[in-house]
Amino acid sequence: MDVALVTVGDELLAGDTENTNATWLCRRLTERGVTVTRVLTIPDDRDVIASAVREFSQAFDACVVTGGLGGTPDDVTKAAVADALDRDLVVADDVKAGIVAKAEAYADQYPDLADAYDLDVDFDAQAAVPEDARPLVTDESFGPGFVAGNVYAFPGIPDELYVMFELVVDEFDGEVVSDSLYTPAPEGALNDRLSDVRERFDVSVGSYPGKGRIPTRIKVSGPPAAVDEAMTWLGEHVDVTEPPEGGSGYADRPGAEPESR
Amino acid sequence: MDVALVTVGDELLAGDTENTNATWLCRRLTERGVTVTRVLTIPDDRDVIASAVREFSQAFDACVVTGGLGGTPDDVTKAAVADALDRDLVVADDVKAGIVAKAEAYADQYPDLADAYDLDVDFDAQAAVPEDARPLVTDESFGPGFVAGNVYAFPGIPDELYVMFELVVDEFDGEVVSDSLYTPAPEGALNDRLSDVRERFDVSVGSYPGKGRIPTRIKVSGPPAAVDEAMTWLGEHVDVTEPPEGGSGYADRPGAEPESR
Repeated sequence: MDVALVTVGDELLAGDTENTNATWLCRRLTERGVTVTRVLTIPDDRDVIASAVREFSQAFDACVVTGGLGGTPDDVTKAAVADALDRDLVVADDVKAGIVAKAEAYADQYPDLADAYDLDVDFDAQAAVPEDARPLVTDESFGPGFVAGNVYAFPGIPDELYVMFELVVDEFDGEVVSDSLYTPAPEGALNDRLSDVRERFDVSVGSYPGKGRIPTRIKVSGPPAAVDEAMTWLGEHVDVTEPPEGGSGYADRPGAEPESR
Repeated sequence: MDVALVTVGDELLAGDTENTNATWLCRRLTERGVTVTRVLTIPDDRDVIASAVREFSQAFDACVVTGGLGGTPDDVTKAAVADALDRDLVVADDVKAGIVAKAEAYADQYPDLADAYDLDVDFDAQAAVPEDARPLVTDESFGPGFVAGNVYAFPGIPDELYVMFELVVDEFDGEVVSDSLYTPAPEGALNDRLSDVRERFDVSVGSYPGKGRIPTRIKVSGPPAAVDEAMTWLGEHVDVTEPPEGGSGYADRPGAEPESR
């Protein structure tokens, strides 16, 4: 299964916010055997979002969108996804009732804020989703996410994304696994073997240089049987060593390096 | 100046590596008044890279590419950028001489590794850049980055990127600034003011919800005079409060929040 991600938000493009949502989704999807084909970050611009969602939903098995689901004027993702799919936005009555209840609970919890500020929540707008979409409702988010065709829309706030994604996680799966080995050989001494293993087996191969005595990492991804064969072949043709101390740690390559098998 | 970023690497799409390069470049460019229009992450696939670079270099003032500049078979960015620009790859003799010297220095520093492994470095391939490109050479990187037309190609290893970017940083500039204010008003009570400020002034406006008593952030970006006018107007029409403690800290929105003025 091939999935493309669209992460929406001016704050991402300004470098205000690290795009941890993208990395988190990439990891979760990869763990499930899915291949993430693209991650695109774009501004809160209805036409740009619609164009990206249209392209990716047609080109890949699913398109996952995060961000811009709130109720302020810079939140245009719902309208944009509806545009992309040539659908209208419609109000789901049960979703709306839930949002009204959340607003009442907020006013109970913060009576001073509710008194001081005129909460002009447009409940219809908050409860709208594209026609025939499946709303995704959690306690953590005020408004819904949704699934419309093969487009999945989630909030941009990480804690809200994490909870909502669990509602649909079983809908993402695939057969791609990966495995790595480490070698003391410098990357520059591996070219022939790296080319060979790509040609012999139905796998993709990445190599990630260490520095000096930090070993080189070779990562192989593909169908399980092909990965097994490729790893066996590599084990016979490349000197193998232990992973660097700390397991995943290339000092200059931040981030965890979980294996998906 | 509008700039799009292309970050190349299967390890990013697998969620192995947080895309800190993208965030760092977004921040550096935004600080200089540039608008970052897109960040696209794609696999180490020559045709996909060529297509993205072609599209972005035509649509925007510059296209910045990171990753895939090494010498192993999964490093195809140089060839892809050459494809995108309809140029050949050519060897710059002075660049090649520098790479040969680096390989000799490596062998001196790690004689056991150099003896044990056959370093079949293809110096011509390592020294190649697209025809008429300006090579970017630093001590930190083995091979060069380059500028070809309005396409800037940098290594994917962060420490190497940071140093190389400094060689060309002055070529990126623009007139966009931004400023923020914080308000105790819930986001849902601000819709009319947020719409008003967008319509009255030549600015883009983002609002980022706090939770409960964590204040809402309103961020305004655009030409300096317009941002000044919009901030003055907002100060007269919105209750203003101090930033949350810790300055930038929305617990659920990771990352620093530097202002670009």
